[in-house]
Amino acid sequence: MDHKGRQKKLRTTLENSRIEALLVTHLSNIRYLCGFTGSAGALVVTPAKSVFFTDGRYTEQARAEVQGARVVIAHKSPLIAAGEWLAAHGKKLRLQAIGIEGDDLTVAERTRLVQSLGRGFRLRQAPPLVEKARVVKDEDEIRLLRAAVTLGASLFDYALKAIRPGVKETEVAAEMEYAARRAGAEGMSFETIIASGPRSALPHGRASQAAIPSQGFVVCDFGVILAGYCSDMTRTVCVGQPSDKARRMYQAVREAQQAAIEAVRPGAGVTEVDRAARESLHKDGLGRYFTHSTGHGVGLEIHEAPRLAADQTDVLCPGMVVTIEPGVYLAGIGGVRIEDMVVVTENGCTVLTPTGKELITI
Amino acid sequence: MDHKGRQKKLRTTLENSRIEALLVTHLSNIRYLCGFTGSAGALVVTPAKSVFFTDGRYTEQARAEVQGARVVIAHKSPLIAAGEWLAAHGKKLRLQAIGIEGDDLTVAERTRLVQSLGRGFRLRQAPPLVEKARVVKDEDEIRLLRAAVTLGASLFDYALKAIRPGVKETEVAAEMEYAARRAGAEGMSFETIIASGPRSALPHGRASQAAIPSQGFVVCDFGVILAGYCSDMTRTVCVGQPSDKARRMYQAVREAQQAAIEAVRPGAGVTEVDRAARESLHKDGLGRYFTHSTGHGVGLEIHEAPRLAADQTDVLCPGMVVTIEPGVYLAGIGGVRIEDMVVVTENGCTVLTPTGKELITI
Repeated sequence: MDHKGRQKKLRTTLENSRIEALLVTHLSNIRYLCGFTGSAGALVVTPAKSVFFTDGRYTEQARAEVQGARVVIAHKSPLIAAGEWLAAHGKKLRLQAIGIEGDDLTVAERTRLVQSLGRGFRLRQAPPLVEKARVVKDEDEIRLLRAAVTLGASLFDYALKAIRPGVKETEVAAEMEYAARRAGAEGMSFETIIASGPRSALPHGRASQAAIPSQGFVVCDFGVILAGYCSDMTRTVCVGQPSDKARRMYQAVREAQQAAIEAVRPGAGVTEVDRAARESLHKDGLGRYFTHSTGHGVGLEIHEAPRLAADQTDVLCPGMVVTIEPGVYLAGIGGVRIEDMVVVTENGCTVLTPTGKELITI
Repeated sequence: MDHKGRQKKLRTTLENSRIEALLVTHLSNIRYLCGFTGSAGALVVTPAKSVFFTDGRYTEQARAEVQGARVVIAHKSPLIAAGEWLAAHGKKLRLQAIGIEGDDLTVAERTRLVQSLGRGFRLRQAPPLVEKARVVKDEDEIRLLRAAVTLGASLFDYALKAIRPGVKETEVAAEMEYAARRAGAEGMSFETIIASGPRSALPHGRASQAAIPSQGFVVCDFGVILAGYCSDMTRTVCVGQPSDKARRMYQAVREAQQAAIEAVRPGAGVTEVDRAARESLHKDGLGRYFTHSTGHGVGLEIHEAPRLAADQTDVLCPGMVVTIEPGVYLAGIGGVRIEDMVVVTENGCTVLTPTGKELITI
């Protein structure tokens, strides 16, 4: 990973912002910028240098992992240690406006930080400089995302083996998560969704103690974390023979997903991709049952920019990795969602998820 | 659960504080006060009434779960909806100073909240009113904690079956987590620690890809979430025959843990409990290798108040549930930790963790 290059790029964007240094506290941003994977740290990036603060639990790990920043082991909270360092060195470095990550720092942390800084500095909510950089994945990241997607996709076989009428949704999730752990995943990238029968109409129906009924859809939405990177996929299977209506519903979602994938190319607005899925479902009379956005970025976090939704203004460019996941949900009856991860290429996109999308009946 | 009683008690503490209403955003506090278990919500508690805000994903769930508060389904962020509700009704309710949870609310959320509130209100960082109430568990909570502890403890059998030289630490964790899921746990209460050989000297050695060596300690620190409540326990086993020195080290930790348990009683300061463990280890010449605090509260969260450490001032009282977990860590060689959960009773304490503490060799 080119951590030093990432910090260099951040310094360039700092020059064009209203802050002179960035105090990075969001752990995914810290990992992205300097490679530290632990759970306690603060990274100060100034035009001249970077300094990383952590605590005694991470002495060895920080020295092994951190790139492009001096490591300081603090005997207090890393955030306060960073504040005191800025208080001691900030004037010499001509720092006045310090950027903080407003979506990460709590109100109480900000108060303590202000105390540790003392006078002579202004704290400003920084624009999402690191998040913006993270939107476009480099080759190393795409390699890791591919590995996560491949491992994640292998769990679907375990779902297919486990899904039977009478089996609890949590038991299906247990089989998948067990396989993920055995295959080396650090964990699941979100709470596994196994939503069967009428529960398949709940877009966020995490696996419950409900038994899978003898007839109906089962939405399986799951992902792993591998080497820090997340995977995310959804397949919907049918227990028992689907009615003609259910079959048409599945087919409509599949076509909408394909239409959205075909709309993914550099220069396309995220709204275009969202609209492609939505118009396809409207054509089939199901548009109003598609109640969420079409996708989102994935990387070190399961939900990253961009969001593929009607109210967004982002434009796709090569290296972005996003999900394409339209769905149709009929309350009290059932739902279908199909989701792949794709990477935007120079000419269009490559689907990373290797799993077929024919309707599987069990 | 007596959610209404908890809100009533909160109103009493509000009367003695410098805020007239509390805007609760910390999800564990929301669950404690009104029973909502979802992932998006904001609860406004005023002297006259409580109102709970969530979004459309949780319509059915909120109506089924929420006690003692009116439910509002917002078409925007629940926090902003709560802010707008306060703007519309706050003056009539004579609210001026609104308490926010500074350890939960981010700087960016606070900014948006201020905008939604408009003029005429002051936001104040509230004291930890709900956290303080949560320190003492009621009978319902102790019942749920007992159930979580019992399920959690059952996983140790799976660890004992899985721990063998050459097996990866993550494979041991996989067996335990699989059993937890199958037994109905919602998840693990923290990342399972399986730290073998020299890694057992890392107090936070979460399961890695390392293979268990043919000789040495294996620290197993793990817990489940069941019905929202967390369990936490540690046992250390020895692969191969322990040396006399290793045996003495284990015995010293066991005695220190017993000494700390015996110090737990109503009226005892948390420092007394911490000191009991530390002095026992000092007597054995191992005090300086005990590098963390002796324990912490457990409930809806894995780490709650009180902290059993030398710099704390809390005093134990009946109904508190805490861990007792001294350890000794020899860098590069190995470590031992033994941890139980105990509930403070009228006369002393009851150990909740049912598992024996004889040194097990594998």
